[in-house]
Amino acid sequence: MKLFIDRLIDGIKQKQTRVCVGLDPHLDLLPTPLLGEIAGVEEYSQASVRGLAAIILEFNRKIIEEVSDVVAVVKPQIAFYEELGPAGMETLFATIDYAQKQGLPVLLDAKKNDIGSTAGAYARAYLEERPDRPAADALTINPYLGGDGVKPFLKYPEKGAFALVRTSNQSAGDIQDLRLADEGCVYERVGLMVKQWGKDCRGRSGYSNLGAVVGATYPRELQQLRRQLPGVFFLIPGYGAQGGGASDVVGGFDENGLGAVVNSSRGISFAARRGPLSQDYDERDFARAARTSAIMMRDSINQALE
Amino acid sequence: MKLFIDRLIDGIKQKQTRVCVGLDPHLDLLPTPLLGEIAGVEEYSQASVRGLAAIILEFNRKIIEEVSDVVAVVKPQIAFYEELGPAGMETLFATIDYAQKQGLPVLLDAKKNDIGSTAGAYARAYLEERPDRPAADALTINPYLGGDGVKPFLKYPEKGAFALVRTSNQSAGDIQDLRLADEGCVYERVGLMVKQWGKDCRGRSGYSNLGAVVGATYPRELQQLRRQLPGVFFLIPGYGAQGGGASDVVGGFDENGLGAVVNSSRGISFAARRGPLSQDYDERDFARAARTSAIMMRDSINQALE
Repeated sequence: MKLFIDRLIDGIKQKQTRVCVGLDPHLDLLPTPLLGEIAGVEEYSQASVRGLAAIILEFNRKIIEEVSDVVAVVKPQIAFYEELGPAGMETLFATIDYAQKQGLPVLLDAKKNDIGSTAGAYARAYLEERPDRPAADALTINPYLGGDGVKPFLKYPEKGAFALVRTSNQSAGDIQDLRLADEGCVYERVGLMVKQWGKDCRGRSGYSNLGAVVGATYPRELQQLRRQLPGVFFLIPGYGAQGGGASDVVGGFDENGLGAVVNSSRGISFAARRGPLSQDYDERDFARAARTSAIMMRDSINQALE
Repeated sequence: MKLFIDRLIDGIKQKQTRVCVGLDPHLDLLPTPLLGEIAGVEEYSQASVRGLAAIILEFNRKIIEEVSDVVAVVKPQIAFYEELGPAGMETLFATIDYAQKQGLPVLLDAKKNDIGSTAGAYARAYLEERPDRPAADALTINPYLGGDGVKPFLKYPEKGAFALVRTSNQSAGDIQDLRLADEGCVYERVGLMVKQWGKDCRGRSGYSNLGAVVGATYPRELQQLRRQLPGVFFLIPGYGAQGGGASDVVGGFDENGLGAVVNSSRGISFAARRGPLSQDYDERDFARAARTSAIMMRDSINQALE
């Protein structure tokens, strides 16, 4: 059985792409033509919620179909599915299933965290293979509870986890940048813990099934963490809509141009609606716009790494 | 409109109870008589998962019915519902509905966290009132992303949030106890941020809609945080199964015996199965055992506060 991280890296090498596409169906950004009768409905009813969930599944499938050969992994953000309740969760699982059938690993962005026994329930909920629903390939987790809250996510060799180290948002530094009494600051220490926690689940590639989330919006920290954390694979969010560009993320890669995937969510899936490509594409062609955006991102990153 | 925190405190005063009961349906601890034909099923199928979800709803309803007059709030832990997929989420919402109809506020333990736009989706998912499903009264959140990830949860005056400050688990200190360069350690600084973030949503009671999670298993830290954080209401987990007792939690209350609720999950809902009461109750009487356990906990805490 191949470790998650080796499987991810094999895909990156094969397809020559370091792009992760976020599937974050912001309800107010969905293509109007897809919404049909539901466009403009203000009050949620059980029917309109089920309708929206079905539309999101169609939206995701079309995007996945168009980008499957140009991205390494897809990352649904669970909040946007939970927003539609149980029907949204059905769409999430159907999306996971569809992406995996197109050969794409699915990194579920849920930032799970709790004491050990509860973390075990989260791990079972999303990483354990079961006949009643598909499982994700990896989960994002939040490390604030320390080692015993992280361990349950490392139980499945064919699955991965990415712990928040340095996030991409503006107030990331509130806690993460606090300077420590002996050396460095919180995010650096958390990075070292992630390295330590994941040391027993390294693959052939030298990287571990426990990776780290490090934002593209802080290029200096990204580069520094890459040096401090050999063997820790990075998920780099914050490309595109949040402001990061190809030159910001190069510091997150190792000397072989590996060791990271870069995520863009709104910049790809809503490319027909917002941003530079929106002038060239009709909203109806959201999936083709997503493909073009993903190719541009893939090529920008690959060129920056040359 | 009454602020969440004032509503919670009014209930505490009225019922003279500071108990929060956790509704964490660990699948391997459910009463065998309730499981019926499903007991012993090893492989999950969609049918067995739906069956389990229905059993958990029955389990929760019976417990809520028995404890509603002796506890201040119920706290479902979302992981155990997510473990059963969409059917589990249906059970979660039906549980929220049932508890609220019995006059109990529902604190959903989900430890949500993300960048602002995604945190907004989580807040809408669980705190926003909508016709298609009930909303919780409050959510637990994880503050690692800083202020802009917390703000979206404070948007609804009639709803509350509890940010992790000092958790109850063994490895809580890995990050939370790191000593800072200028003064104190991480959890203390996070506590001060929580106080600051929540200062504009204080109620008549003097407490804020943004509370803090501080574990019963660290009584010294609990007492110290109570002094440092006037106006911040505490959710104190770790009573019972995790090892905390009444004498451990008194330090979390203010001079009026207010300012906190204490949670026990397994110690109440599985009292017939494990712990001191399991000899006196048949598993069939799990709900009555839960009531007895909740009354004992209520009285122990009230006496310790006299």
